[in-house]
Amino acid sequence: MNRYRPDQARALLERIERHEAEVGAFVCYDPVRIRADCDTAPDGPLSGLSMGVKDIIDTAFYPTGYGSPIYDGHHSRNDAACVTQLREAGAVCAGKTVTTEFAFFRAGATVNPHHVSHTPGGSSSGSAAAVAAGMVDIGLASQTAASLTRPASYCGVVGFKPSYGRYAPAGIKGLAPSFDTLGTITADVTTAARVDAVLKGPVAAPFVLENKVPAAVGICRTPWWAEADESTHTALQDAARKLGEHVRVEEVDLSEFAQAADLHITIMSYEAAQALGWEFASRRELLSEQIAQLIASGRTISYAAYRSALEKAETLRHEISKVFARYNVLLAPAAPGEAPRLEDGTGSPIFSRLWTLLRLPTVTLPGFRGVSGLPVGVQLLGAFGDDEALLGYAAWAETIFPKRPIPFQRGDD
Amino acid sequence: MNRYRPDQARALLERIERHEAEVGAFVCYDPVRIRADCDTAPDGPLSGLSMGVKDIIDTAFYPTGYGSPIYDGHHSRNDAACVTQLREAGAVCAGKTVTTEFAFFRAGATVNPHHVSHTPGGSSSGSAAAVAAGMVDIGLASQTAASLTRPASYCGVVGFKPSYGRYAPAGIKGLAPSFDTLGTITADVTTAARVDAVLKGPVAAPFVLENKVPAAVGICRTPWWAEADESTHTALQDAARKLGEHVRVEEVDLSEFAQAADLHITIMSYEAAQALGWEFASRRELLSEQIAQLIASGRTISYAAYRSALEKAETLRHEISKVFARYNVLLAPAAPGEAPRLEDGTGSPIFSRLWTLLRLPTVTLPGFRGVSGLPVGVQLLGAFGDDEALLGYAAWAETIFPKRPIPFQRGDD
Repeated sequence: MNRYRPDQARALLERIERHEAEVGAFVCYDPVRIRADCDTAPDGPLSGLSMGVKDIIDTAFYPTGYGSPIYDGHHSRNDAACVTQLREAGAVCAGKTVTTEFAFFRAGATVNPHHVSHTPGGSSSGSAAAVAAGMVDIGLASQTAASLTRPASYCGVVGFKPSYGRYAPAGIKGLAPSFDTLGTITADVTTAARVDAVLKGPVAAPFVLENKVPAAVGICRTPWWAEADESTHTALQDAARKLGEHVRVEEVDLSEFAQAADLHITIMSYEAAQALGWEFASRRELLSEQIAQLIASGRTISYAAYRSALEKAETLRHEISKVFARYNVLLAPAAPGEAPRLEDGTGSPIFSRLWTLLRLPTVTLPGFRGVSGLPVGVQLLGAFGDDEALLGYAAWAETIFPKRPIPFQRGDD
Repeated sequence: MNRYRPDQARALLERIERHEAEVGAFVCYDPVRIRADCDTAPDGPLSGLSMGVKDIIDTAFYPTGYGSPIYDGHHSRNDAACVTQLREAGAVCAGKTVTTEFAFFRAGATVNPHHVSHTPGGSSSGSAAAVAAGMVDIGLASQTAASLTRPASYCGVVGFKPSYGRYAPAGIKGLAPSFDTLGTITADVTTAARVDAVLKGPVAAPFVLENKVPAAVGICRTPWWAEADESTHTALQDAARKLGEHVRVEEVDLSEFAQAADLHITIMSYEAAQALGWEFASRRELLSEQIAQLIASGRTISYAAYRSALEKAETLRHEISKVFARYNVLLAPAAPGEAPRLEDGTGSPIFSRLWTLLRLPTVTLPGFRGVSGLPVGVQLLGAFGDDEALLGYAAWAETIFPKRPIPFQRGDD
């Protein structure tokens, strides 16, 4: 299997080094290791592709720091399942990409490739920025609230969060196991689908992707529409109009789902307080105020309140399945607007809490721009478990939406 | 919070050292650390109790070897969520208990305290044996097929596997995430319920346990009754008779669930092949034949077959919920018979695959003996999510079943 592939390594390193000093997408990458990996990568369905691995995902070679000083220099002995699967399929690991602290809010050093004064979004900051800047082909990312959809929207790339449970969680630091979902950031839907064929099982499945034209699309402003600004309002309306030129589109009223955001916060806080129990009990001085507050708040929730939230979430999952009897896909905002400035944090997760609670697969598509010229995405949602169909609809929508923004087309500052 | 508690430490060490040379329940324990932990343990609802931690569960102080030479000397930086929770509640960690390789079949050095030529069962071998021999009060254990129920039955102790998802999975090496469930081995139901109040949330909940008398008990011989031997047949019939002296008992036909064992094997193999993907790809020479075969078999299953199994499992979960509309609890065999001899392996998981697939809470109760005089348990099953009620029914059943067997009452060899 070993081949000498200096060209692949050189090209990958050039892509990284052209942008990394400005973007700061990586926690670490190692040119020697990259050259060796290019030479030893097996031939497979992802040959020639490179991946950035979010730093909550274990790797045997690189340290895994979870975005926290508590884990400075921490080395796992093994690769996470997803890393093993991509490597077996021929992809090369470029390095570890920046995550916020434990995939929550405290940001790392990454900036938005479209404007270095703005956040790439969180928590999958480095993976989204690395793909947006063209440094890697596949960004391994994850979502517990909005950690994949939001950075995909802010960075103008494709984000695919599959149905809950579709990809193996082994070797990924958990935050709230009811929601934690591994997914990908890529430049286009085709790459997401190629990677999906690899990640959905222990052996790569055949890659099949057909552009699928939906019979009907439901437009969901969602109960949080007032929290979106003009950039998102325009992007959603533009996307709906584009879709409406080809297929039936209808507004869907989701007012009965308005409690979803609070349910999501209750469950996430309760579970995060357990998942990070050791860190809170033994290393609290090294936690940010934000995550310490999340945990402290989770510790005030009763088991009865948590159980009740879980049961209501189940009920809502049943309710949404009825909506998919009427629409093949739903179109919804991906974030409240353009990427905030760095000093204003990594952005609000409000437009993903519902969908993460419902465990639905979602594809964030780029192509729109906000009032400052920064990227704004929209998300397409599919029925639970029907990820192949959603990818097909997204591949079709990609052909009718504007092309994804090219990075470094900066607005005025 | 710090107190000088030399008596607690001395008593715990005496309990361990009285039996450990013969039983071999521990991978490691450290008297110096035990003394320090006794002195620094906070006052809490589990004060005075000791725990043995199955060696697939991470601990910051002790190495965690997952029962595999691949992880010799492996140290995690943190304690698993469950260990943090028990320690915060005042329990003291006695050490790490023996697991089979990655909680599958290859046995460690532990023997059955009731007869040293027999297996304690797997995979929670050390936790079950340590509790049976009186070395610790709480055995942290887990189940993906039958890894908690079977050793509880073989060792004559109480095994509580809660509803899937009830206890936090953070810091536990996974085997098949659709099934992996943390639970406990204890000497009685009251201790299981006291620990449950601690493990079900980030902060200990109030401990409430009432003996509950069911209105109706369903007796489930299950579709695998022919695989049980005389010891199990007698135990189940004795248990049903005891229950029938007080409440209505009826046979429940589960023939529509006969496919459950195959569904369980399909899902478990597919997921284990991913969870242990790195070990298979990079350290195969250090895997046992059994687990390498499990992974190899998982790699032959198509995604379509896996998805279909997941969907059928969901259907069966819906079906069993109807059964619980008629019965408060179900009574079923816990294992095919007494503990096999060591050279015959850790026993068959056949009598738990159905219940693990259905994600139901189960309490294994001791009190019965097989044809060789070794312990035989039975299991009581409750409706999904109604763990408190199940513990109440089990606490009542415990009062009418024979007392649990005392270890070291050996049969002839």
